Amino acid sequence: MPTQTVEETAEEIATMEIRGAATIARAAAEALAAQARESDAADPAAFRADMRRAARRLVDTRPTAVSLPNALRYVFEGMSGETVDALESSVEETVDTFLADLESARDRLGRIGANRLRDGDVIMTHCHSTDALATVREAVAAGKHIEAYVKETRPRKQGLITARQLREMGVPVTLIVDNAAHRYLNDVDHVVVGADSIAADGSVINKIGTSGLAVSARDRGTPIMVAAQTLKLHPGTLTGHTVEIEMREEDEVIEPEEREEVGDVEVHNPAFDVTPPRHVDAIVTERGQFPPESIVTLMRELYGEVDSDPWTEPSGGDSRR
Amino acid sequence: MPTQTVEETAEEIATMEIRGAATIARAAAEALAAQARESDAADPAAFRADMRRAARRLVDTRPTAVSLPNALRYVFEGMSGETVDALESSVEETVDTFLADLESARDRLGRIGANRLRDGDVIMTHCHSTDALATVREAVAAGKHIEAYVKETRPRKQGLITARQLREMGVPVTLIVDNAAHRYLNDVDHVVVGADSIAADGSVINKIGTSGLAVSARDRGTPIMVAAQTLKLHPGTLTGHTVEIEMREEDEVIEPEEREEVGDVEVHNPAFDVTPPRHVDAIVTERGQFPPESIVTLMRELYGEVDSDPWTEPSGGDSRR
Amino acid sequence: MPTQTVEETAEEIATMEIRGAATIARAAAEALAAQARESDAADPAAFRADMRRAARRLVDTRPTAVSLPNALRYVFEGMSGETVDALESSVEETVDTFLADLESARDRLGRIGANRLRDGDVIMTHCHSTDALATVREAVAAGKHIEAYVKETRPRKQGLITARQLREMGVPVTLIVDNAAHRYLNDVDHVVVGADSIAADGSVINKIGTSGLAVSARDRGTPIMVAAQTLKLHPGTLTGHTVEIEMREEDEVIEPEEREEVGDVEVHNPAFDVTPPRHVDAIVTERGQFPPESIVTLMRELYGEVDSDPWTEPSGGDSRR
Amino acid sequence: MPTQTVEETAEEIATMEIRGAATIARAAAEALAAQARESDAADPAAFRADMRRAARRLVDTRPTAVSLPNALRYVFEGMSGETVDALESSVEETVDTFLADLESARDRLGRIGANRLRDGDVIMTHCHSTDALATVREAVAAGKHIEAYVKETRPRKQGLITARQLREMGVPVTLIVDNAAHRYLNDVDHVVVGADSIAADGSVINKIGTSGLAVSARDRGTPIMVAAQTLKLHPGTLTGHTVEIEMREEDEVIEPEEREEVGDVEVHNPAFDVTPPRHVDAIVTERGQFPPESIVTLMRELYGEVDSDPWTEPSGGDSRR
Amino acid sequence: MPTQTVEETAEEIATMEIRGAATIARAAAEALAAQARESDAADPAAFRADMRRAARRLVDTRPTAVSLPNALRYVFEGMSGETVDALESSVEETVDTFLADLESARDRLGRIGANRLRDGDVIMTHCHSTDALATVREAVAAGKHIEAYVKETRPRKQGLITARQLREMGVPVTLIVDNAAHRYLNDVDHVVVGADSIAADGSVINKIGTSGLAVSARDRGTPIMVAAQTLKLHPGTLTGHTVEIEMREEDEVIEPEEREEVGDVEVHNPAFDVTPPRHVDAIVTERGQFPPESIVTLMRELYGEVDSDPWTEPSGGDSRR
Amino acid sequence: MPTQTVEETAEEIATMEIRGAATIARAAAEALAAQARESDAADPAAFRADMRRAARRLVDTRPTAVSLPNALRYVFEGMSGETVDALESSVEETVDTFLADLESARDRLGRIGANRLRDGDVIMTHCHSTDALATVREAVAAGKHIEAYVKETRPRKQGLITARQLREMGVPVTLIVDNAAHRYLNDVDHVVVGADSIAADGSVINKIGTSGLAVSARDRGTPIMVAAQTLKLHPGTLTGHTVEIEMREEDEVIEPEEREEVGDVEVHNPAFDVTPPRHVDAIVTERGQFPPESIVTLMRELYGEVDSDPWTEPSGGDSRR
Repeated sequence: MPTQTVEETAEEIATMEIRGAATIARAAAEALAAQARESDAADPAAFRADMRRAARRLVDTRPTAVSLPNALRYVFEGMSGETVDALESSVEETVDTFLADLESARDRLGRIGANRLRDGDVIMTHCHSTDALATVREAVAAGKHIEAYVKETRPRKQGLITARQLREMGVPVTLIVDNAAHRYLNDVDHVVVGADSIAADGSVINKIGTSGLAVSARDRGTPIMVAAQTLKLHPGTLTGHTVEIEMREEDEVIEPEEREEVGDVEVHNPAFDVTPPRHVDAIVTERGQFPPESIVTLMRELYGEVDSDPWTEPSGGDSRR
Repeated sequence: MPTQTVEETAEEIATMEIRGAATIARAAAEALAAQARESDAADPAAFRADMRRAARRLVDTRPTAVSLPNALRYVFEGMSGETVDALESSVEETVDTFLADLESARDRLGRIGANRLRDGDVIMTHCHSTDALATVREAVAAGKHIEAYVKETRPRKQGLITARQLREMGVPVTLIVDNAAHRYLNDVDHVVVGADSIAADGSVINKIGTSGLAVSARDRGTPIMVAAQTLKLHPGTLTGHTVEIEMREEDEVIEPEEREEVGDVEVHNPAFDVTPPRHVDAIVTERGQFPPESIVTLMRELYGEVDSDPWTEPSGGDSRR
Repeated sequence: MPTQTVEETAEEIATMEIRGAATIARAAAEALAAQARESDAADPAAFRADMRRAARRLVDTRPTAVSLPNALRYVFEGMSGETVDALESSVEETVDTFLADLESARDRLGRIGANRLRDGDVIMTHCHSTDALATVREAVAAGKHIEAYVKETRPRKQGLITARQLREMGVPVTLIVDNAAHRYLNDVDHVVVGADSIAADGSVINKIGTSGLAVSARDRGTPIMVAAQTLKLHPGTLTGHTVEIEMREEDEVIEPEEREEVGDVEVHNPAFDVTPPRHVDAIVTERGQFPPESIVTLMRELYGEVDSDPWTEPSGGDSRR
Repeated sequence: MPTQTVEETAEEIATMEIRGAATIARAAAEALAAQARESDAADPAAFRADMRRAARRLVDTRPTAVSLPNALRYVFEGMSGETVDALESSVEETVDTFLADLESARDRLGRIGANRLRDGDVIMTHCHSTDALATVREAVAAGKHIEAYVKETRPRKQGLITARQLREMGVPVTLIVDNAAHRYLNDVDHVVVGADSIAADGSVINKIGTSGLAVSARDRGTPIMVAAQTLKLHPGTLTGHTVEIEMREEDEVIEPEEREEVGDVEVHNPAFDVTPPRHVDAIVTERGQFPPESIVTLMRELYGEVDSDPWTEPSGGDSRR
Repeated sequence: MPTQTVEETAEEIATMEIRGAATIARAAAEALAAQARESDAADPAAFRADMRRAARRLVDTRPTAVSLPNALRYVFEGMSGETVDALESSVEETVDTFLADLESARDRLGRIGANRLRDGDVIMTHCHSTDALATVREAVAAGKHIEAYVKETRPRKQGLITARQLREMGVPVTLIVDNAAHRYLNDVDHVVVGADSIAADGSVINKIGTSGLAVSARDRGTPIMVAAQTLKLHPGTLTGHTVEIEMREEDEVIEPEEREEVGDVEVHNPAFDVTPPRHVDAIVTERGQFPPESIVTLMRELYGEVDSDPWTEPSGGDSRR
Repeated sequence: MPTQTVEETAEEIATMEIRGAATIARAAAEALAAQARESDAADPAAFRADMRRAARRLVDTRPTAVSLPNALRYVFEGMSGETVDALESSVEETVDTFLADLESARDRLGRIGANRLRDGDVIMTHCHSTDALATVREAVAAGKHIEAYVKETRPRKQGLITARQLREMGVPVTLIVDNAAHRYLNDVDHVVVGADSIAADGSVINKIGTSGLAVSARDRGTPIMVAAQTLKLHPGTLTGHTVEIEMREEDEVIEPEEREEVGDVEVHNPAFDVTPPRHVDAIVTERGQFPPESIVTLMRELYGEVDSDPWTEPSGGDSRR
């Protein structure tokens, strides 16, 4: 049975207190480590069954967050041992390695993306992406002067977080509403965004508004860079699956009292949209930069053919307990 | 000296209590009528000087609102007479005619635009435009079923007004944030927007966000119709003048307390943007529909060559008093 | 009451024995002349009522053929006189003038369009258009060598008529199926098509397949010329009306026995489609060549504001008889 | 010397009684198995020479059908043994495996492509492709409601076969002529086509009309999916070879009696055309979906560098007999 | 018989010592005035015949320079009188008016074009155009800071003249080869070019290289303004005539000694190319700015239908002398 | 210390007497061989230090020429041995192999590119590229008739070299200025260019003017082929580095005396520009043809992850001597 920590983590992922793909991955891995540490399983089979249950609890919170299952899969692949103790320590070690890799991945990605930015460049951001910000941080660290137009990114206005973090790096920021993006693209050298996940057909799934921004950028001749750790590659899309787009709460868009006034309207609040590869110039990962049309090669290299998830109950499995 | 009403109207235009091009035009014309009625001018020259002063007071409130000078020009062209009484009644009659034309213009425009909509069509709106809504109203009046995606239109969320008025017509409405527009354009048969003004080169100046929406619409193969009375044609642009874009208050974009948290950022809040004619399919006026590239012909037909404004002081003029 | 000739003409227009906009216009004008000649009306009012009835009979056969009402309108505008005899001869004279103009219009249009073609040019045709062929005829008459790719133009294969007439002019012809058009556009200097009608927004309504061909031509960098007498300008579209697209018999697409085999399918057989002005390079009329975005200016010049049709019964009108 | 079966198969491939890439591959493999079974070769060298001769007979029937040499190559690579008996049974086993793989490939491809289709989607098809239909079949099997616009696909009207098979799956079908495709693309969620072969530069060689349809789809914002087993990848194009386009019989386009009437025209009847990768969204194979620009990676992975065909006579080879 | 001055002017136009449309027009008008002044014609018919001969001598020097016949036509329309003296003075007066209009036209055009430029804008120029430079001059005169990228404009490097004149206005200039234009367009706010002539279909005929620059500008989202007095409108194109493109001397491209080394090559040296209206944002004339698609309206307004040139010999005309 | 030959080679690379990527690579490899041969190093460490110093001398001459470090890297990877003699002969052998591979690479690339060209094709070239010419040479060797438009390629007019070499192959050549390229693209079947280097994001860095030509080619529907040996792949770009564009001497653009006349202008003379992958149809290498978006796969296959250059001094390294 999942530990309190697993339960808390699951809760916080579900309520978006924990958000951002890498943060979710880290939290999920740490929750598995906590589960392993606090396990009172009597035998290896029970331990494994608890781990599977914890993983399922976690993965169910955000079925569309691709970093979550990728993190869990990483941990399960490192779990081995003939005793509960051995299993536990293998999980802890695997989680440690995973976290270290995760940390260095962002820095490495940041340095690679920073190489695309020149001294004096003006960027435009959409939403809040730690990967995208890592490229700016490294560019600034390399002594480049960078300025930014920051789209506020309705409905949740994550642009404000981006603006604050850019200011903390010393980057001059101009805040604009999303509607003003097209008008300012002529003054922009690079659109820099993150990704929620990346599909085998080269599509970038990212915060709602990205696809329109990308079309605008093409119209204005402004290149668009997607910063995304390989954790965001979605191996399930190799088999044609489209990424399910989360529909979020309507009151993010309109508050109940306003809505009363407006009358009986529907509200659609999709969290993400899909940008086709032809509207993106490069995907920057910790393993280098790629044209979006080539990311499938990296995906197959890293994940191969995906058949089933390690936390799925083996036939006749957990029920044996 | 301007009457109380002129002063009040000027105030309300400045604070945007009075807004919308036709509403401003109407209010301005009515204010001139009030000025005429309440004039205590001793002689025709004094009457005319008061009228000019009133006009200048009004025109200065929103130097970029093209319907305002057009309305004033209309009234001045109808002002004639050898006595104060004659002048006064000529102004009142001219204002009456102007208001009647204005009223019928919207209905006629509405019927013309409605002819472009088919039964069952889904439209997308941006901002709030009484001209654009007139086309929907007439389509509904003609028995067509119309549905609408309504963009909220940050920063001032005029989309909520549009949503409410569409609901009052019985049009099913789906409210979306501006960022979601691109995603839903595939489900849309027509983008229908208004215009703040229309330039001689066929550009459409409209609420910030229109130009990006138009690019998106081209990418998705969705036609875009601009509904704009000829009052919106900007004769000053014949001589190459670009329409000055109003920069509005920063706290429409971010409230002071939020801003404190974010840190020292600039905020740009342009009211409008410019959509080139190649991204627009038709401009619907009360005189018919036109490709945007042809609107200059209508502009020259209606306004000819523009040299000076009738409310400009004649040399040696008002000072003589 | 319509004469036998009016009835026959109406019938032949309805069954498409009479087809092609100019041919329809000519036949309709001639039918009105016959109606006038054979009228046994006792008085001018009766004569006029007969003429109106004949016009209505004719116009109802193909409500979407724009040349038909334009021809009728022309004749009615020339009908005048205080006696039945005077009326009759005015109609006959007007029809004569109309037919002469019609004849010269094609030649003049042909010469104008021919000027766009250079010696050695290769054209591609779609459907069968006497206006389009007139441009080739005049080019050949001017000593230019022209070659043609002729699309067969399913479902009615009017391309075969085009092929035969081009061969009669001595133009080498390569016949292709419609599907092969894109492949051969690289070898083509001009796409030359006619029009069923032309709308105020610059759209060209022409035989189904034109809009796709025009998109292909843009992709291949091949210019597209529309040859259309001003008879094809559709004044009704000034008020926003879209041109109603005729849906034709399903067995033009699939013969009943084939259909039996295929099973229970729907068949859509639209006669025309709509090409937006941005996909057309020039519209060639007998009054010169125009960018499609400017044709509305010519339309307003020729037809002004259209309010009602002269063959509509005046209130209390025909019933008086 | 080729067996009667090889001869018959070759004949039927040449006359297109056997058609469709997978069907040809299957028939060719089975013909080789028959050749092996019925061989009266006295020694292994003679057996191998017979096999080579049979392969050459088959490959010569349709030099442009890429699945044919791929199938033969597969069988030759499995042929081994020191005796005629051993060779024979190795061929039969290899053919069995090949046929089993072929069967499962289509189903797997179908499931992958089906994942791109959502419940309620409307597709448009061109020509007849069992791979494309497999994606619909699996979507329907997964409980999704799919509707289809089916282009008749002149000159051979394979659309009728597609229509019938879609009806058998319960898919509502609307049949249109090829010219009507552009007009209906706005109502379509996916264009789904097969491929004759796929080149290293990402080009898709498919039934004439595909390239124009793809351009139309881009103009309308409609995604286009190509369903093609890896059997269709054309390894010869790695070395820059363009795929030779078969020119077919002229009387597929026009019947002799019609042609007589038309006069002395040329007729071009290319079987295929070439769609560049930028006009295609995804290629769906049994090994996953790929952007067309990445298919070269899969091609090199599966086929490596291609130098010579195993059925080419070794120097001094067959002549020794 | 043409005067020495006509002869000299003709010579200098032919050798391009006199170049630039307005300069040619001015020189041609002045030459006609000189012809009138120095005429020793015995009677009005002889005077007129001399004038026609002079006009023909002038017009033949550069058959493609549209301002030349337009200037001549202007003068002939003003020539009237019953005596040689009266004719002479009518010509002189007409020429004076023409020259005054010409002078003010450039200034007016300059002010209109300048209104499109903002303080701080960076422009790119192609070739040398006094009309284009007039827009910059007026912008600078209005206190705007303008900078310029100047394309050298092979083969005749008129960019150097442009660079020098911009420097004289105090405009900072960066000189680049034509090949570098695309690379610097991202730093440019407006492409500003002149025109050799403008056709009824909205095409702009201008110095070779303009059409490619315009395509580049669209790709980069940079607007392109054409500055052209109405003298450049080519009324002959109303009747479909394409503007004949002058092919110039090969040794402008390669010097004989270089050519010897290269071997036996052809050299094509077209003076102009044709930019379609969809690649141009505005045409600025002394009568206002227009979308290129609307210029035909202005052309018809100014020139109407063109039938014959006034300097053509009337039948039986000059030969009578 | 570098030998005289290294010094001479370095000098000649710096002054561009040695130019062209393969020529530079060959010269650099040969210089290393000479260095090895003429080394008077007392021990292996000294030998290696001399080799490193020679490499650094060479690599510093053209920091942007990607073939130079790739050639050096190749040689260093083949350098091995425990004695000075052994080291020397290993270097010589490696250089021999490298040169042989280089030679055959061009021929192989040429044959692959030639396969894309058909008999009768017309190509357009930009600058001078031995790789691009190799494709034509092989096409001609295969009996195909090829004609060429050759852009002169300002500022250095390498087009003249291209023209001469094409003439030597018997290819009919039409020389044009760069400005005329767009005009003639309609008559062209393939644009064929080389590359200075190719980046991981699929961008092609090539002679200034390539990016604009590629945009023009897309507008005209003309395919563009880049011929580039894998020596041109720039592994450093995998980590996001943009290729630094060499700015060359200003007097290549304008001679001092001309400049004096023009006045105080800046001159920008970038040697290269960057063409995005979406404007290129295929990159032809000696290992096959690839869509530009897939070249990153080949780059990673050939070069893997690049960390440091073998000629970098090891810590405490050379200083030990």
